[in-house]
Amino acid sequence: MALATCTPGKTRIGWIGTGVMGQSMCGHLVDKGFEATITTRSKSKAEGLLAKGATWAETPKQVAENADVIFAIVGFPKDVREVFLGEQGALAGSKADNILVDMTTSQPSLAEEIAEAAKAKGVFSVDAPVSGGDVGAKNAALSIMVGGEEEAVAAVMPCFEAMGKTIKHQGGPGAGQHTKMVNQMLIAPMMIGVCEALMYAYKSGLDPMKVLESVGSGAAGSWSINNLGPRIIKGDFEPGFYVEHFIKDMGIALAEAEMMGLSLPGLALAKQLYEAVKAQGFGRKGTQALMLALEQMSGIKREGLTD
Amino acid sequence: MALATCTPGKTRIGWIGTGVMGQSMCGHLVDKGFEATITTRSKSKAEGLLAKGATWAETPKQVAENADVIFAIVGFPKDVREVFLGEQGALAGSKADNILVDMTTSQPSLAEEIAEAAKAKGVFSVDAPVSGGDVGAKNAALSIMVGGEEEAVAAVMPCFEAMGKTIKHQGGPGAGQHTKMVNQMLIAPMMIGVCEALMYAYKSGLDPMKVLESVGSGAAGSWSINNLGPRIIKGDFEPGFYVEHFIKDMGIALAEAEMMGLSLPGLALAKQLYEAVKAQGFGRKGTQALMLALEQMSGIKREGLTD
Repeated sequence: MALATCTPGKTRIGWIGTGVMGQSMCGHLVDKGFEATITTRSKSKAEGLLAKGATWAETPKQVAENADVIFAIVGFPKDVREVFLGEQGALAGSKADNILVDMTTSQPSLAEEIAEAAKAKGVFSVDAPVSGGDVGAKNAALSIMVGGEEEAVAAVMPCFEAMGKTIKHQGGPGAGQHTKMVNQMLIAPMMIGVCEALMYAYKSGLDPMKVLESVGSGAAGSWSINNLGPRIIKGDFEPGFYVEHFIKDMGIALAEAEMMGLSLPGLALAKQLYEAVKAQGFGRKGTQALMLALEQMSGIKREGLTD
Repeated sequence: MALATCTPGKTRIGWIGTGVMGQSMCGHLVDKGFEATITTRSKSKAEGLLAKGATWAETPKQVAENADVIFAIVGFPKDVREVFLGEQGALAGSKADNILVDMTTSQPSLAEEIAEAAKAKGVFSVDAPVSGGDVGAKNAALSIMVGGEEEAVAAVMPCFEAMGKTIKHQGGPGAGQHTKMVNQMLIAPMMIGVCEALMYAYKSGLDPMKVLESVGSGAAGSWSINNLGPRIIKGDFEPGFYVEHFIKDMGIALAEAEMMGLSLPGLALAKQLYEAVKAQGFGRKGTQALMLALEQMSGIKREGLTD
């Protein structure tokens, strides 16, 4: 029997992890009329969703006991492992034909492991990390990169459509995570270029904002230079995406690449430079704070930076 | 007295260097009705323009003797130096109020030197490198990055408008070249990311073209991934822009950065990787051939590559 397509009023959803991203994403499902049971580390972060009518559970296991499709978006791979595979995890509370959906950016190999463990209980597993940040989550405009069996992905699709705009099924278990790694691997060396180029621009006496008019739309153009470039020029290093989360993602990508026997000098350099950003105290700044580490390397002192 | 604005039928133009780029660019001026005197290393490459009515000259000096505004787009900085400052160069043949316009990607410091030498004879100098490649040159859609004195830039503007779409005056002498360096500095590390990410994509079992649907339009998106990505996936390494020209540009940028006391690890890595591409015999392939060097590093053998 094919899995039933997720339907408000019929399918009960569970949600684990209601941080900035999870709050908005789960909120869209509640707004669509899905009945939701939720849990998260600090209950205070669940208040908005509880006020909307979601039900609180103490553990991921309890969430799963009261849901058919259980989503999670948490922090690090160890958190993913705990909320899905732990003693009080979602799989422990799941019955056959439940679907576990991990939207955290995490290890492809862990996604495969969860899928295997789930399968042994007749449970399905989908990995579906996102890009688009807090703004994309709020506006239901995320890019969602999906891995998993066709049947389970098709069943969950209406939920994804409530949260995202670009939703692509990339392959079997782990393929969503691998695709997210590709995404981060594109961004990492690109950010080095963005910061180096802007540093060169102002040190050579150019007006960096005017330079963007020349370089932003041609072969040098990118989302990063056009969106983060102006913030860097204005000295705005507030997070869209945290340096320390980016370091986590690059670490995962490098470890996966090592397992495949791939040498990735650009990604390795980017990771090291971002380690410098963090070492300098900017781990909770946005990825554009790479500029600060590069400036330090070249002995440039920036004035008036609020830390 | 302000310089006269370039006008077809009145202003005589000169053109030095009629390679793939120069042919198209000068052709647009001839099409607008400008009288043109031209020279280039291999006369065969001037035939198209001569057939359109341009006049041949034996040296850049002779070109200048018969022109008011003299453009050049040649190869390396040493060629720029020769065609402008050499014994048979354009400055030697220039009279007061001539304007020299270098559209080669070359050293900012050389652009300043030419401007100084020109000024001593009452001659103006403008540096105006371009991006957009052969297709941009053909379609008069180039981005032109302009440095030089306001008066001279304003006078030449109608000529630029016949060749390009995005024309920005970035500052005094050298500012056009510095802006082009910024452009190349954005591209260089970005290309590492593009190739590493695509290599990871196919090694992890993903369909790289499908991955582009997930990553091409968000925060990881760039001209490079969206335009060169599909070519890499198809194994098309034919040049839009030559590896060996890119190496030249990166060398200039690194030398200029060194003069400014800037440490640019991303650009330095990119230059070294592109040296590997060239060492492997792909100097006359397009910049996307970086993929071949990265694959070699990881011991990946690609079949059926025509060299």
